[in-house]
Amino acid sequence: MRPSGRTAQQLRPLTFTRHYTKYAEGAVLVEFGETRVLCTATVEEGVPRFLKGQNKGWITAEYSMLPRSTHQRHARESVKGKQGGRTLEIQRLIARALRAAVDLTKLGEFTIKLDCDVLQADGGTRTAAITGACVALQDALQKMRVEGKLKSNPMKGLVAAVSVGVVGGESICDLEYIEDAIAETDMNVVMIEEGAGRKIIEIQGTAEGAPFSHQQLLELLALADDGIKTIFQAQKKVLEK
Amino acid sequence: MRPSGRTAQQLRPLTFTRHYTKYAEGAVLVEFGETRVLCTATVEEGVPRFLKGQNKGWITAEYSMLPRSTHQRHARESVKGKQGGRTLEIQRLIARALRAAVDLTKLGEFTIKLDCDVLQADGGTRTAAITGACVALQDALQKMRVEGKLKSNPMKGLVAAVSVGVVGGESICDLEYIEDAIAETDMNVVMIEEGAGRKIIEIQGTAEGAPFSHQQLLELLALADDGIKTIFQAQKKVLEK
Amino acid sequence: MRPSGRTAQQLRPLTFTRHYTKYAEGAVLVEFGETRVLCTATVEEGVPRFLKGQNKGWITAEYSMLPRSTHQRHARESVKGKQGGRTLEIQRLIARALRAAVDLTKLGEFTIKLDCDVLQADGGTRTAAITGACVALQDALQKMRVEGKLKSNPMKGLVAAVSVGVVGGESICDLEYIEDAIAETDMNVVMIEEGAGRKIIEIQGTAEGAPFSHQQLLELLALADDGIKTIFQAQKKVLEK
Amino acid sequence: MRPSGRTAQQLRPLTFTRHYTKYAEGAVLVEFGETRVLCTATVEEGVPRFLKGQNKGWITAEYSMLPRSTHQRHARESVKGKQGGRTLEIQRLIARALRAAVDLTKLGEFTIKLDCDVLQADGGTRTAAITGACVALQDALQKMRVEGKLKSNPMKGLVAAVSVGVVGGESICDLEYIEDAIAETDMNVVMIEEGAGRKIIEIQGTAEGAPFSHQQLLELLALADDGIKTIFQAQKKVLEK
Amino acid sequence: MRPSGRTAQQLRPLTFTRHYTKYAEGAVLVEFGETRVLCTATVEEGVPRFLKGQNKGWITAEYSMLPRSTHQRHARESVKGKQGGRTLEIQRLIARALRAAVDLTKLGEFTIKLDCDVLQADGGTRTAAITGACVALQDALQKMRVEGKLKSNPMKGLVAAVSVGVVGGESICDLEYIEDAIAETDMNVVMIEEGAGRKIIEIQGTAEGAPFSHQQLLELLALADDGIKTIFQAQKKVLEK
Amino acid sequence: MRPSGRTAQQLRPLTFTRHYTKYAEGAVLVEFGETRVLCTATVEEGVPRFLKGQNKGWITAEYSMLPRSTHQRHARESVKGKQGGRTLEIQRLIARALRAAVDLTKLGEFTIKLDCDVLQADGGTRTAAITGACVALQDALQKMRVEGKLKSNPMKGLVAAVSVGVVGGESICDLEYIEDAIAETDMNVVMIEEGAGRKIIEIQGTAEGAPFSHQQLLELLALADDGIKTIFQAQKKVLEK
Repeated sequence: MRPSGRTAQQLRPLTFTRHYTKYAEGAVLVEFGETRVLCTATVEEGVPRFLKGQNKGWITAEYSMLPRSTHQRHARESVKGKQGGRTLEIQRLIARALRAAVDLTKLGEFTIKLDCDVLQADGGTRTAAITGACVALQDALQKMRVEGKLKSNPMKGLVAAVSVGVVGGESICDLEYIEDAIAETDMNVVMIEEGAGRKIIEIQGTAEGAPFSHQQLLELLALADDGIKTIFQAQKKVLEK
Repeated sequence: MRPSGRTAQQLRPLTFTRHYTKYAEGAVLVEFGETRVLCTATVEEGVPRFLKGQNKGWITAEYSMLPRSTHQRHARESVKGKQGGRTLEIQRLIARALRAAVDLTKLGEFTIKLDCDVLQADGGTRTAAITGACVALQDALQKMRVEGKLKSNPMKGLVAAVSVGVVGGESICDLEYIEDAIAETDMNVVMIEEGAGRKIIEIQGTAEGAPFSHQQLLELLALADDGIKTIFQAQKKVLEK
Repeated sequence: MRPSGRTAQQLRPLTFTRHYTKYAEGAVLVEFGETRVLCTATVEEGVPRFLKGQNKGWITAEYSMLPRSTHQRHARESVKGKQGGRTLEIQRLIARALRAAVDLTKLGEFTIKLDCDVLQADGGTRTAAITGACVALQDALQKMRVEGKLKSNPMKGLVAAVSVGVVGGESICDLEYIEDAIAETDMNVVMIEEGAGRKIIEIQGTAEGAPFSHQQLLELLALADDGIKTIFQAQKKVLEK
Repeated sequence: MRPSGRTAQQLRPLTFTRHYTKYAEGAVLVEFGETRVLCTATVEEGVPRFLKGQNKGWITAEYSMLPRSTHQRHARESVKGKQGGRTLEIQRLIARALRAAVDLTKLGEFTIKLDCDVLQADGGTRTAAITGACVALQDALQKMRVEGKLKSNPMKGLVAAVSVGVVGGESICDLEYIEDAIAETDMNVVMIEEGAGRKIIEIQGTAEGAPFSHQQLLELLALADDGIKTIFQAQKKVLEK
Repeated sequence: MRPSGRTAQQLRPLTFTRHYTKYAEGAVLVEFGETRVLCTATVEEGVPRFLKGQNKGWITAEYSMLPRSTHQRHARESVKGKQGGRTLEIQRLIARALRAAVDLTKLGEFTIKLDCDVLQADGGTRTAAITGACVALQDALQKMRVEGKLKSNPMKGLVAAVSVGVVGGESICDLEYIEDAIAETDMNVVMIEEGAGRKIIEIQGTAEGAPFSHQQLLELLALADDGIKTIFQAQKKVLEK
Repeated sequence: MRPSGRTAQQLRPLTFTRHYTKYAEGAVLVEFGETRVLCTATVEEGVPRFLKGQNKGWITAEYSMLPRSTHQRHARESVKGKQGGRTLEIQRLIARALRAAVDLTKLGEFTIKLDCDVLQADGGTRTAAITGACVALQDALQKMRVEGKLKSNPMKGLVAAVSVGVVGGESICDLEYIEDAIAETDMNVVMIEEGAGRKIIEIQGTAEGAPFSHQQLLELLALADDGIKTIFQAQKKVLEK
């Protein structure tokens, strides 16, 4: 029995608030239960130096947690003078995931910056960030088309992510903080929609408490696939509005 | 005529949302029109080294803008590796203002950290931050009393702030961004409620476009005094809930 | 009675030593009593990127205290790896004050860097820095005219600053360190000479110990105005040599 | 056909040179073909603050590449003033992998620091680092037992890692640089020996060029399992000397 | 013929101004011609961690140039965020030189910090700094004796330094900037007075333009020895006042 | 009697391993006894800004010690966020020494970067680095000639270095760590071969424990000259292969 009363495969209530702030080309507040992440997409002309002259675009991401998004206040990285390893790891993951979903050649010489700022953290912030950033990115790309900056939609398919894990020997989907804190295994899965199916973009599984077997890996993957299928439906619904 | 149709002395719609996030001891979203600042108050045991053994408390503040809280995305300070001069100046101001409102001896050996994160910036973020932080601070102090950490309320009076300025030769109150950008003079005033009256805690006036006269200073002060009087009423109303 | 035996409105002995060092385009040692600040003005071709192509000049400032300019040695900022908030705040103030005194369009595409290094600190270093930097700036501009880099003097008027404050309930002018340390209110005022009168460029008042009333603010302003009038005379006298 | 003429599942020649340098408690040069990583284990008394008083040990890791370990010289991180995201990600992975293999309670209040310095990089440096660090760690733990610092061996089982990937649609094991550079999918797998079997400690798969299917994931896992089985034999052989 | 008309072995006019600033335990302005360095000595209780409990003192040094002490303005190290290699090299030299002159055991658990700030640079700033710091150190030690912190003088002998070099094939002493800039060889020599004689504490010779022979080294040493002999006399004279 | 049984003037066994790694234009492992330094030379097109358009080349150096190259592990400079004073001092010395050996005009607009990474430190790492870097530089220059980037060899002569010192009153050559740690005087000498003779490029002598006399300096120089003569023979021998 999970703390929230959910079944093993059940996601937390999932909502997207588009246009949450007014300046960004895309601005989405995504909520997985109590986890709240503000994802904005900024369109800038030009590309990083290493891409100059290749007629391709680029996508980067930055991730940060507000100091009091967590139970205990954690120090601001601007005060510490550098971003920590966890932050860098997560923002590299977000950027990689969304780049995999976009045909950069169709994007042209633009850079899209995805900013994912965690307002409240209750587990699964990185997967929520990827999921919300996908919607913000869609909004930004749509705006570019309206402004004539793009001829066609460079997005190959929707991207979503979910965390799965083993807690007390049971495989479960979409862990909240108190589950995450005691999980034996923690796995994040990112998928892209391909026609009626889904393919894997990224899988990161870690044995926090105990190594896991091939069999457990398969169970976790099945849970993730099921959860992401539901998330894709929610993304589509909010984008149709 | 102001862009918003407001009169010279008229404030923008002002709202406070208490308990905006769930972990902090105080967590208030303050909105002056389109300017939105999340202010949290964190209570920590102990004081900085220079205060050890003096049986006094301390209050500090940190200020930050989300990258896309502004028209153009501005670089994240954690990525640049340091906080800029403007940020440091503002957070020093916020901390000084709130410390002036609290009897640190009554606070005991606790440190309260005020985090002011700008979600959307449309002028007056620093004065909004001070105004919102005062409410978050009250909530945190109230929680400390309930938990028996404080015997009496160390707050000497409410603190609020407003920006005033000279635009096109006219003195106006609570400037929004497009007014601020063209102001000849920009002034921030912080006051504390003292009985039925108000006293000044901080005044910072800068001739951005043209130096100002003694007479103009008096006009600006009167506008600020009037505006802050209204803000105190709003603070009291939301704190009574 | 003040420690130095001065009256409330009396300034400390004020001296300017021009050409204190030999390489800078302007180099002035300014002394307010025991406070000694070396102010140099450096002329460089070109402007920061954000001004390129606008046919305007720019003025910046940097401020620093020698480690043993103070009672207790304070750590060198180059060793700490960053400038502190107080330093940044002061150098932003100095630059803003002097920019307000110069017609940047007349300056042409030159940048003038004002370096204010405190050799000995006995209160009022930032106001001394502004006051001395104005003289150094005049020397540098004069040198530019002689070298044919300027057609006319871009300085709109002299700029000077003074600190005023409330100590033991009394308003006084030009506080030395032991007064400053116990002041209830501390205020820095920067003015520009305009014809026979003076206008305000910057006012920064802080209630260090107790909030201040409208009446006290007026008293402090009158003292500052009176003090700055005297300083303008001293600046003119030294510039005539 | 692979550039080296290897079959899909074939590892590169694998060698371990123990006692490669003389001061460290464990010092192993591991070579996977042309990839050469120096792994040292340093034993220090005490644990990080967050573990104090829990009667447990700790294991950390640091990873670095010599400037000319690569085709093009890459800038030294000490000169840039910070470790990059890739470095932090890898050293976090190494530490996590080895901690998973050790019973920290049996280790007692010691910290073991694993330094993995890449002398030459030809693909698979992070998996080589984990594999070599395991041998260095064993040597250091053995030294601690000889010195009476440990009562029993806290190592739960050998740990090894290998990279697998999809290149030109084919799944292959132990990619060298020119394979890695063009891989559609890149996956690193870390396993621990458990009796006659193996369990997964970490799996990180990324779709660099194209998303991958469930079926491809299974193929990659099988290759990794097979490769790691061979690596465990090599580790045991060298440790028996 | 030298630019100043000096003979090969002739020093520039050398002056020491003791008590140049009022807070430091020792504060000396040293001038070698146009080179001016402010040297202060600060006495602090306690020693660095690595010396704790050994009943010994310590001496450190910091060196800096004011931005406009040079022909061209050079960037402030606090702004760049770190001290440069030249700065670190010089302050390590200063500290080493003065430590060699003091019996640290007699000093007791005190740390003396020597700050050498160059107000104007015209060649030989590091040797001037060592020479001036020695006088400031003497003043600080004398103050400690007066205050009863020391039982005896821990200074073993005076320390002084001078630069020598080969310019146009000629060996000369005490190079000013325009000589230094074209020197084939540049050498700094630090000596300690021992009875009627002198011994070498540090010698640093560099072939800037052309390698030098054994014979040239001997000539340079003789010049340095002669120059330092004169400097010792000047130091003694000023300390007798 | 020295710990190794060597005579006062005897060098440790000296070996050079060329092509130690495969990517760099020059890559030499140099060993002075147990001291092992990997020296690579990287050729890059272009020169630093200050040399642009002068039709000259440039040579720089970087030096680093692996964390466990020493008895006690020392912290990685990339983790500390900056290079220490000793590191900067040494790499400035290496670059200066090798630049003195090369006719930069003949080099053309190329920059050669010398990386000296200490794998194991047993005294004399900086002199070993210079000595090994000279061989790596020769290899890189030779490669440039083969590739047609150079018309003639810009190397003026071989460069080598050795440490000498006074231990227990005796002058000795090529100190190993346990000698270095107790030396009264420590001196590093860098020479260039000029025809059948040698000239001095750099001399750095420090009185670590006791000041030294003119006579001792001469003894040390004679030892260094003798040692470097032997090193030149070894360099030539390995370069002839």
